[in-house]
Amino acid sequence: MARWPPDAQARLTRAALELFAERGYEDTTVVDIVERAGLGKTTFFRYFKDKREVLFGGDERDDLVGDAIAAAPASATPLEAVAAAFDAAARERFTAERREPLTMRQQVIDANPQLREREALKYLGLVASMTTALERRGVAELQAAVSAELGILTLKLAFARWIAAKKAEDFGPLARRTLGEVRASAGR
Amino acid sequence: MARWPPDAQARLTRAALELFAERGYEDTTVVDIVERAGLGKTTFFRYFKDKREVLFGGDERDDLVGDAIAAAPASATPLEAVAAAFDAAARERFTAERREPLTMRQQVIDANPQLREREALKYLGLVASMTTALERRGVAELQAAVSAELGILTLKLAFARWIAAKKAEDFGPLARRTLGEVRASAGR
Repeated sequence: MARWPPDAQARLTRAALELFAERGYEDTTVVDIVERAGLGKTTFFRYFKDKREVLFGGDERDDLVGDAIAAAPASATPLEAVAAAFDAAARERFTAERREPLTMRQQVIDANPQLREREALKYLGLVASMTTALERRGVAELQAAVSAELGILTLKLAFARWIAAKKAEDFGPLARRTLGEVRASAGR
Repeated sequence: MARWPPDAQARLTRAALELFAERGYEDTTVVDIVERAGLGKTTFFRYFKDKREVLFGGDERDDLVGDAIAAAPASATPLEAVAAAFDAAARERFTAERREPLTMRQQVIDANPQLREREALKYLGLVASMTTALERRGVAELQAAVSAELGILTLKLAFARWIAAKKAEDFGPLARRTLGEVRASAGR
């Protein structure tokens, strides 16, 4: 029999997000989180290094964006390869059932300057991954930098639209539509 | 008679940059800096809150970029207004005599992960200033965000070219040329 319940990580995340929303991020402790989740501290530290990892842990363990760009067809233009990363994000991160916890998470981050700074640095890491992945496809340095900046800006804008929408929408088409608007704006 | 020599700030900056280059940023103290400059600690703290301010102080005290965008002709497109900010930067920051200290400064930052992070956040602050300044001109939100991202990316790329060039070049035209390349890349 497993020592940790199979849904422990999801329960801890949910409990943490609820508490961050209720009391604020600063005023929530790991003890509060495990009590709310009905689990122990050892279980918490099996999944998360600290409280902040509940918000920033998962997305950094792999390079979804870089892998999707690498896997795009050889014929894809830089921005088409970037769009392939949005489709991967739609399948693996921005799914309908994750919209509510991701919305709660974003509200917690938006309310805290340190967390906003942390998030900004995470996005810069994504720009760097995207740039490297495009360069590996043979895209020239300046072109790769521009495509990656526009790609991550699109991701941010599309994500904001996705969580703000009244009802759940498929993230992939929404992000591709946003990319079209960003491209159209880039020449002005 | 002035209590501080009129060139005290420049002497302190120069001494600090030399020491950062020689021993590394972490291994240089404020005492080292004032000794090298032949000045006292009180003088140092008149100009800088701490050692890091020698690198990041000056550029944050005003909103050069935002002001230049606000002052651009009403008929200017978003990217033309951004280019006006490059001209202001060329006049007030990236002058021929500042190329050497700015190059030394950049080498110090590039060698230190915490300073790189600090610099990245500073650039994000510039994106935000630029976005706000464009929106105040009546530019729509998404258009302002795209123009600001491309503007700051151009500023970074042009600055890297400016310090890498064998001989000093006028920053304004260099930045406008770089903006042209960035625009051309944005549609692909």
